[in-house]
Amino acid sequence: MKRSLTFWYEFASTYSWLSAERIEALAVQAGVEVAWRPFLLGPIFAAQGWTSSPFNLFPAKGRNMWRDMERQCARLGLPPIVRPDPFPQNSLLAARIATALPPAARPPFSRAVYRAQFTQGCSIADRAVLAAILDDIGGAPSDAFAAAEAAETKDALRQATDQAQSLGIYGAPSFTTASGELFWGNDRLEQAIGWAKNETILPAGAC
Amino acid sequence: MKRSLTFWYEFASTYSWLSAERIEALAVQAGVEVAWRPFLLGPIFAAQGWTSSPFNLFPAKGRNMWRDMERQCARLGLPPIVRPDPFPQNSLLAARIATALPPAARPPFSRAVYRAQFTQGCSIADRAVLAAILDDIGGAPSDAFAAAEAAETKDALRQATDQAQSLGIYGAPSFTTASGELFWGNDRLEQAIGWAKNETILPAGAC
Repeated sequence: MKRSLTFWYEFASTYSWLSAERIEALAVQAGVEVAWRPFLLGPIFAAQGWTSSPFNLFPAKGRNMWRDMERQCARLGLPPIVRPDPFPQNSLLAARIATALPPAARPPFSRAVYRAQFTQGCSIADRAVLAAILDDIGGAPSDAFAAAEAAETKDALRQATDQAQSLGIYGAPSFTTASGELFWGNDRLEQAIGWAKNETILPAGAC
Repeated sequence: MKRSLTFWYEFASTYSWLSAERIEALAVQAGVEVAWRPFLLGPIFAAQGWTSSPFNLFPAKGRNMWRDMERQCARLGLPPIVRPDPFPQNSLLAARIATALPPAARPPFSRAVYRAQFTQGCSIADRAVLAAILDDIGGAPSDAFAAAEAAETKDALRQATDQAQSLGIYGAPSFTTASGELFWGNDRLEQAIGWAKNETILPAGAC
Protein backbone atom coordinates (compact mmCIF):
# COMPACT_ATOMS: atom_id res chain seq x y z
CA MET A 1 0.00 0.00 0.00
CA LYS A 2 1.47 3.30 -1.13
CA ARG A 3 2.17 5.72 1.72
CA SER A 4 0.54 9.10 1.31
CA LEU A 5 0.64 12.60 2.71
CA THR A 6 -1.82 15.42 2.18
CA PHE A 7 -0.23 18.82 1.63
CA TRP A 8 -2.61 21.59 2.75
CA TYR A 9 -1.61 24.94 1.31
CA GLU A 10 -2.92 28.48 1.05
CA PHE A 11 -1.81 30.52 -1.95
CA ALA A 12 -1.28 33.70 0.08
CA SER A 13 1.02 31.95 2.58
CA THR A 14 4.75 32.57 2.38
CA TYR A 15 5.81 29.38 4.12
CA SER A 16 3.43 27.34 1.95
CA TRP A 17 5.54 28.53 -0.97
CA LEU A 18 8.67 27.02 0.57
CA SER A 19 6.96 23.67 1.00
CA ALA A 20 5.56 23.78 -2.54
CA GLU A 21 9.15 24.14 -3.76
CA ARG A 22 10.50 21.34 -1.59
CA ILE A 23 7.86 18.66 -1.17
CA GLU A 24 8.11 16.76 -4.44
CA ALA A 25 11.80 15.86 -4.25
CA LEU A 26 11.51 14.84 -0.60
CA ALA A 27 8.40 12.75 -1.24
CA VAL A 28 9.88 10.94 -4.24
CA GLN A 29 12.99 10.11 -2.23
CA ALA A 30 10.83 8.67 0.58
CA GLY A 31 8.42 6.85 -1.72
CA VAL A 32 5.48 8.85 -0.39
CA GLU A 33 2.63 10.05 -2.59
CA VAL A 34 1.53 13.64 -2.07
CA ALA A 35 -2.02 14.95 -2.49
CA TRP A 36 -1.95 18.72 -3.06
CA ARG A 37 -4.95 20.31 -1.37
CA PRO A 38 -5.43 24.04 -1.68
CA PHE A 39 -7.66 25.57 0.98
CA LEU A 40 -8.46 29.01 2.36
CA LEU A 41 -7.07 30.24 5.65
CA GLY A 42 -9.33 33.30 5.74
CA PRO A 43 -12.42 31.52 7.13
CA ILE A 44 -10.28 29.65 9.68
CA PHE A 45 -8.62 32.88 10.85
CA ALA A 46 -12.01 34.62 10.93
CA ALA A 47 -13.42 31.84 13.14
CA GLN A 48 -10.83 32.71 15.78
CA GLY A 49 -11.47 36.43 15.51
CA TRP A 50 -8.66 37.42 13.15
CA THR A 51 -9.45 39.86 10.37
CA SER A 52 -6.09 39.53 8.61
CA SER A 53 -2.91 37.49 8.63
CA PRO A 54 -1.21 37.17 12.04
CA PHE A 55 1.82 38.66 10.29
CA ASN A 56 -0.16 41.88 9.90
CA LEU A 57 -2.00 41.72 13.21
CA PHE A 58 1.23 41.23 15.19
CA PRO A 59 3.84 43.54 13.63
CA ALA A 60 6.92 42.11 15.40
CA LYS A 61 5.94 38.65 14.21
CA GLY A 62 5.44 40.00 10.70
CA ARG A 63 8.82 41.77 10.60
CA ASN A 64 10.61 38.62 11.66
CA MET A 65 8.68 36.50 9.15
CA TRP A 66 9.83 38.67 6.23
CA ARG A 67 13.41 38.61 7.48
CA ASP A 68 13.21 34.87 8.02
CA MET A 69 11.84 34.37 4.50
CA GLU A 70 14.87 36.27 3.14
CA ARG A 71 17.13 33.88 5.02
CA GLN A 72 15.20 30.76 4.02
CA CYS A 73 15.11 31.75 0.33
CA ALA A 74 18.89 32.24 0.41
CA ARG A 75 19.42 28.88 2.13
CA LEU A 76 17.19 27.05 -0.34
CA GLY A 77 18.66 28.70 -3.41
CA LEU A 78 15.34 30.38 -4.24
CA PRO A 79 15.10 33.87 -5.74
CA PRO A 80 14.91 36.64 -3.13
CA ILE A 81 11.43 37.19 -1.76
CA VAL A 82 9.42 40.18 -3.00
CA ARG A 83 6.56 41.37 -0.84
CA PRO A 84 3.30 41.46 -2.77
CA ASP A 85 1.09 44.47 -2.16
CA PRO A 86 -1.34 43.96 -0.55
CA PHE A 87 -0.25 41.15 1.71
CA PRO A 88 -1.93 38.78 2.09
CA GLN A 89 -3.14 38.56 -1.48
CA ASN A 90 -6.69 37.56 -2.31
CA SER A 91 -6.13 33.90 -3.14
CA LEU A 92 -9.71 32.85 -3.91
CA LEU A 93 -9.48 32.63 -7.69
CA ALA A 94 -6.08 30.90 -7.66
CA ALA A 95 -7.39 28.37 -5.13
CA ARG A 96 -10.51 27.71 -7.21
CA ILE A 97 -8.44 27.17 -10.35
CA ALA A 98 -6.11 24.79 -8.52
CA THR A 99 -9.11 22.92 -7.15
CA ALA A 100 -10.56 22.48 -10.63
CA LEU A 101 -7.29 21.46 -12.31
CA PRO A 102 -6.43 17.79 -12.78
CA PRO A 103 -4.23 16.65 -9.85
CA ALA A 104 -1.09 16.41 -12.00
CA ALA A 105 -1.38 20.07 -13.01
CA ARG A 106 -1.70 21.39 -9.48
CA PRO A 107 1.99 21.32 -8.49
CA PRO A 108 3.32 23.24 -11.52
CA PHE A 109 0.40 25.69 -11.44
CA SER A 110 0.78 26.26 -7.71
CA ARG A 111 4.54 26.77 -7.81
CA ALA A 112 4.14 29.24 -10.67
CA VAL A 113 1.51 31.19 -8.71
CA TYR A 114 3.84 31.35 -5.71
CA ARG A 115 6.78 32.48 -7.83
CA ALA A 116 4.73 35.18 -9.58
CA GLN A 117 3.55 36.42 -6.20
CA PHE A 118 6.65 36.13 -4.07
CA THR A 119 9.50 36.67 -6.53
CA GLN A 120 7.85 39.15 -8.88
CA GLY A 121 5.28 40.78 -6.65
CA CYS A 122 2.45 40.02 -9.09
CA SER A 123 -1.17 40.08 -8.02
CA ILE A 124 -2.50 36.54 -7.92
CA ALA A 125 -6.05 37.89 -8.06
CA ASP A 126 -5.27 39.24 -11.54
CA ARG A 127 -6.81 37.06 -14.26
CA ALA A 128 -4.10 38.08 -16.73
CA VAL A 129 -1.40 36.80 -14.39
CA LEU A 130 -3.25 33.53 -13.85
CA ALA A 131 -3.95 33.17 -17.58
CA ALA A 132 -0.25 33.59 -18.37
CA ILE A 133 0.62 30.93 -15.80
CA LEU A 134 -1.99 28.51 -17.18
CA ASP A 135 -0.67 29.12 -20.68
CA ASP A 136 2.86 28.47 -19.52
CA ILE A 137 2.04 25.11 -17.92
CA GLY A 138 0.10 24.03 -20.98
CA GLY A 139 -3.38 24.57 -19.58
CA ALA A 140 -6.25 26.25 -21.40
CA PRO A 141 -6.96 29.50 -19.54
CA SER A 142 -10.55 29.93 -20.65
CA ASP A 143 -11.47 26.36 -19.73
CA ALA A 144 -9.69 26.75 -16.39
CA PHE A 145 -11.54 29.99 -15.57
CA ALA A 146 -14.86 28.42 -16.48
CA ALA A 147 -14.12 25.36 -14.33
CA ALA A 148 -13.01 27.62 -11.48
CA GLU A 149 -16.37 29.36 -11.45
CA ALA A 150 -18.44 26.18 -11.59
CA ALA A 151 -20.65 25.52 -8.57
CA GLU A 152 -19.01 22.15 -7.89
CA THR A 153 -15.56 23.77 -7.77
CA LYS A 154 -16.71 26.43 -5.33
CA ASP A 155 -18.27 23.68 -3.21
CA ALA A 156 -15.14 21.53 -3.37
CA LEU A 157 -12.95 24.41 -2.15
CA ARG A 158 -15.40 25.19 0.66
CA GLN A 159 -15.36 21.52 1.61
CA ALA A 160 -11.55 21.45 1.58
CA THR A 161 -11.49 24.40 3.98
CA ASP A 162 -14.12 22.78 6.21
CA GLN A 163 -12.20 19.51 6.19
CA ALA A 164 -8.94 21.28 7.03
CA GLN A 165 -10.61 22.91 10.00
CA SER A 166 -12.16 19.63 11.16
CA LEU A 167 -8.72 17.98 10.97
CA GLY A 168 -7.46 20.62 13.40
CA ILE A 169 -5.61 22.74 10.85
CA TYR A 170 -5.06 26.36 11.93
CA GLY A 171 -2.27 27.54 9.63
CA ALA A 172 -0.46 26.77 6.40
CA PRO A 173 1.28 24.80 5.23
CA SER A 174 0.01 21.77 7.11
CA PHE A 175 0.46 18.10 6.41
CA THR A 176 -1.79 15.20 7.38
CA THR A 177 -1.08 11.49 7.14
CA ALA A 178 -3.53 8.70 6.40
CA SER A 179 -3.98 8.05 10.13
CA GLY A 180 -4.72 11.73 10.81
CA GLU A 181 -1.35 12.82 12.20
CA LEU A 182 -1.10 16.60 11.75
CA PHE A 183 2.09 18.55 11.21
CA TRP A 184 2.11 22.35 10.95
CA GLY A 185 4.64 24.44 9.11
CA ASN A 186 7.32 24.16 6.48
CA ASP A 187 9.74 23.28 9.28
CA ARG A 188 7.84 20.02 9.84
CA LEU A 189 7.82 18.87 6.20
CA GLU A 190 10.64 16.34 6.65
CA GLN A 191 9.08 14.92 9.81
CA ALA A 192 5.66 14.68 8.14
CA ILE A 193 7.10 12.76 5.22
CA GLY A 194 9.03 10.51 7.58
CA TRP A 195 5.88 9.82 9.58
CA ALA A 196 3.85 9.02 6.44
CA LYS A 197 6.61 6.71 5.24
CA ASN A 198 6.62 4.71 8.47
CA GLU A 199 2.90 4.52 9.05
CA THR A 200 1.51 1.03 9.21
CA ILE A 201 -1.82 1.05 7.53
CA LEU A 202 -3.41 -2.33 7.19
CA PRO A 203 -6.39 -2.87 4.96
CA ALA A 204 -9.61 -3.32 6.92
CA GLY A 205 -10.01 -6.88 8.18
CA ALA A 206 -6.32 -7.72 7.78
CA CYS A 207 -6.01 -8.68 11.42
CA MET B 1 36.85 37.63 18.97
CA LYS B 2 34.62 34.92 20.38
CA ARG B 3 31.31 34.55 18.56
CA SER B 4 28.28 34.82 20.75
CA LEU B 5 24.56 34.14 20.75
CA THR B 6 21.96 35.28 23.24
CA PHE B 7 19.38 32.65 24.18
CA TRP B 8 16.13 34.32 25.26
CA TYR B 9 13.93 31.92 27.15
CA GLU B 10 10.72 31.92 29.16
CA PHE B 11 10.37 29.30 31.87
CA ALA B 12 6.72 28.57 31.05
CA SER B 13 7.47 27.91 27.37
CA THR B 14 7.49 24.34 26.11
CA TYR B 15 9.71 24.96 23.08
CA SER B 16 12.16 26.94 25.24
CA TRP B 17 12.66 23.70 27.15
CA LEU B 18 13.74 21.90 23.98
CA SER B 19 16.31 24.59 23.21
CA ALA B 20 17.57 24.56 26.79
CA GLU B 21 18.26 20.85 26.36
CA ARG B 22 19.98 21.25 22.99
CA ILE B 23 21.83 24.55 22.89
CA GLU B 24 24.99 23.77 24.83
CA ALA B 25 26.20 20.84 22.75
CA LEU B 26 25.47 22.66 19.49
CA ALA B 27 27.19 25.84 20.66
CA VAL B 28 30.30 24.04 21.89
CA GLN B 29 30.56 22.22 18.58
CA ALA B 30 30.35 25.54 16.71
CA GLY B 31 32.66 27.44 19.05
CA VAL B 32 29.90 29.90 19.91
CA GLU B 33 29.41 31.30 23.39
CA VAL B 34 25.84 31.38 24.69
CA ALA B 35 24.39 33.99 27.04
CA TRP B 36 21.31 32.60 28.78
CA ARG B 37 18.74 35.38 29.24
CA PRO B 38 15.51 34.56 31.00
CA PHE B 39 12.69 37.00 30.30
CA LEU B 40 8.91 37.14 30.69
CA LEU B 41 6.57 36.66 27.78
CA GLY B 42 3.52 37.79 29.76
CA PRO B 43 4.09 41.54 29.34
CA ILE B 44 4.90 41.07 25.64
CA PHE B 45 1.73 39.05 25.06
CA ALA B 46 -0.29 41.56 27.09
CA ALA B 47 1.03 44.41 24.91
CA GLN B 48 -0.58 42.76 21.89
CA GLY B 49 -3.84 42.11 23.68
CA TRP B 50 -3.32 38.50 24.74
CA THR B 51 -4.35 37.51 28.23
CA SER B 52 -2.86 34.02 28.09
CA SER B 53 -0.62 31.81 25.97
CA PRO B 54 -1.62 31.58 22.30
CA PHE B 55 -1.77 27.83 22.94
CA ASN B 56 -4.74 28.48 25.24
CA LEU B 57 -6.27 31.31 23.24
CA PHE B 58 -6.28 29.28 20.01
CA PRO B 59 -7.32 25.72 20.96
CA ALA B 60 -6.42 24.02 17.65
CA LYS B 61 -2.94 25.52 17.86
CA GLY B 62 -2.67 24.35 21.46
CA ARG B 63 -3.75 20.80 20.68
CA ASN B 64 -1.18 20.50 17.93
CA MET B 65 1.55 21.99 20.12
CA TRP B 66 1.06 19.31 22.78
CA ARG B 67 1.03 16.58 20.16
CA ASP B 68 4.09 18.08 18.50
CA MET B 69 5.90 18.23 21.84
CA GLU B 70 5.21 14.50 22.32
CA ARG B 71 6.79 13.86 18.94
CA GLN B 72 9.76 16.17 19.53
CA CYS B 73 10.49 14.67 22.97
CA ALA B 74 10.52 11.20 21.42
CA ARG B 75 12.82 12.34 18.61
CA LEU B 76 15.23 14.02 20.99
CA GLY B 77 15.31 11.14 23.47
CA LEU B 78 13.75 13.31 26.18
CA PRO B 79 11.28 11.96 28.74
CA PRO B 80 7.64 12.19 27.63
CA ILE B 81 6.09 15.59 28.22
CA VAL B 82 3.72 16.04 31.14
CA ARG B 83 1.33 19.00 31.02
CA PRO B 84 1.67 21.17 34.08
CA ASP B 85 -1.56 22.45 35.59
CA PRO B 86 -2.14 25.31 35.15
CA PHE B 87 -0.49 25.96 31.81
CA PRO B 88 1.24 28.29 31.42
CA GLN B 89 2.85 28.20 34.83
CA ASN B 90 3.64 31.38 36.74
CA SER B 91 7.32 31.71 35.93
CA LEU B 92 8.12 34.93 37.77
CA LEU B 93 10.01 33.49 40.73
CA ALA B 94 11.98 31.02 38.62
CA ALA B 95 12.95 33.82 36.23
CA ARG B 96 14.03 36.07 39.08
CA ILE B 97 16.16 33.30 40.60
CA ALA B 98 17.79 32.57 37.24
CA THR B 99 18.45 36.29 36.76
CA ALA B 100 20.18 36.50 40.13
CA LEU B 101 22.24 33.32 39.74
CA PRO B 102 25.83 33.50 38.48
CA PRO B 103 25.84 32.90 34.69
CA ALA B 104 27.40 29.46 35.02
CA ALA B 105 24.57 28.26 37.25
CA ARG B 106 21.80 29.37 34.91
CA PRO B 107 21.92 26.44 32.47
CA PRO B 108 21.71 23.63 35.04
CA PHE B 109 19.12 25.52 37.10
CA SER B 110 17.02 26.28 34.03
CA ARG B 111 17.11 22.76 32.65
CA ALA B 112 16.12 21.38 36.04
CA VAL B 113 13.19 23.81 36.25
CA TYR B 114 12.03 22.72 32.79
CA ARG B 115 12.33 19.04 33.66
CA ALA B 116 10.45 19.46 36.94
CA GLN B 117 7.69 21.30 35.07
CA PHE B 118 7.44 19.35 31.85
CA THR B 119 8.41 15.80 32.82
CA GLN B 120 7.02 15.71 36.38
CA GLY B 121 4.25 18.29 36.20
CA CYS B 122 5.63 20.18 39.20
CA SER B 123 4.62 23.75 39.93
CA ILE B 124 7.55 26.04 39.21
CA ALA B 125 5.95 28.74 41.34
CA ASP B 126 6.37 26.43 44.35
CA ARG B 127 9.30 27.53 46.54
CA ALA B 128 9.83 23.96 47.74
CA VAL B 129 10.29 22.74 44.17
CA LEU B 130 12.73 25.57 43.40
CA ALA B 131 14.60 25.01 46.69
CA ALA B 132 15.05 21.32 45.85
CA ILE B 133 16.41 22.23 42.42
CA LEU B 134 18.81 24.80 43.89
CA ASP B 135 19.98 22.25 46.41
CA ASP B 136 20.52 19.71 43.69
CA ILE B 137 22.70 22.01 41.56
CA GLY B 138 24.77 23.00 44.58
CA GLY B 139 23.19 26.42 45.13
CA ALA B 140 22.12 27.83 48.47
CA PRO B 141 18.31 28.11 48.37
CA SER B 142 17.94 30.79 51.02
CA ASP B 143 20.60 33.00 49.42
CA ALA B 144 19.01 32.47 46.00
CA PHE B 145 15.53 33.39 47.26
CA ALA B 146 16.89 36.52 48.93
CA ALA B 147 18.76 37.54 45.76
CA ALA B 148 15.64 36.83 43.70
CA GLU B 149 13.62 39.31 45.74
CA ALA B 150 16.26 42.07 45.67
CA ALA B 151 15.23 45.25 43.90
CA GLU B 152 18.14 45.06 41.46
CA THR B 153 17.10 41.55 40.40
CA LYS B 154 13.51 42.60 39.81
CA ASP B 155 14.81 45.55 37.79
CA ALA B 156 17.20 43.38 35.81
CA LEU B 157 14.41 40.98 34.81
CA ARG B 158 12.15 43.87 33.83
CA GLN B 159 15.00 45.28 31.74
CA ALA B 160 15.58 41.90 30.08
CA THR B 161 11.92 41.79 29.09
CA ASP B 162 12.03 45.39 27.83
CA GLN B 163 15.19 44.67 25.88
CA ALA B 164 13.68 41.52 24.37
CA GLN B 165 10.71 43.54 23.20
CA SER B 166 12.91 46.30 21.77
CA LEU B 167 14.91 43.67 19.85
CA GLY B 168 11.66 42.59 18.20
CA ILE B 169 11.14 39.43 20.23
CA TYR B 170 7.53 38.23 20.33
CA GLY B 171 7.87 34.61 21.44
CA ALA B 172 10.20 32.11 23.05
CA PRO B 173 12.69 30.76 22.58
CA SER B 174 14.39 33.45 20.54
CA PHE B 175 18.03 33.91 19.64
CA THR B 176 19.89 37.13 18.83
CA THR B 177 23.37 37.53 17.44
CA ALA B 178 25.85 40.31 18.17
CA SER B 179 24.73 42.17 15.05
CA GLY B 180 21.06 41.97 16.07
CA GLU B 181 19.93 39.12 13.82
CA LEU B 182 16.81 37.60 15.38
CA PHE B 183 15.71 33.98 15.11
CA TRP B 184 12.46 32.73 16.62
CA GLY B 185 11.74 29.22 17.78
CA ASN B 186 13.51 26.00 18.68
CA ASP B 187 13.37 25.08 14.99
CA ARG B 188 15.78 27.95 14.24
CA LEU B 189 18.40 27.06 16.85
CA GLU B 190 20.83 25.48 14.39
CA GLN B 191 20.50 28.38 11.96
CA ALA B 192 20.99 30.92 14.74
CA ILE B 193 24.18 29.22 15.89
CA GLY B 194 25.41 29.00 12.30
CA TRP B 195 24.70 32.69 11.81
CA ALA B 196 26.53 33.66 15.01
CA LYS B 197 29.48 31.50 13.99
CA ASN B 198 29.82 33.19 10.62
CA GLU B 199 29.24 36.76 11.71
CA THR B 200 32.09 39.13 10.97
CA ILE B 201 32.33 41.53 13.82
CA LEU B 202 35.25 43.88 13.60
CA PRO B 203 36.30 45.98 16.55
CA ALA B 204 35.37 49.65 16.15
CA GLY B 205 37.91 51.51 14.01
CA ALA B 206 39.34 48.35 12.47
CA CYS B 207 38.65 49.56 8.97
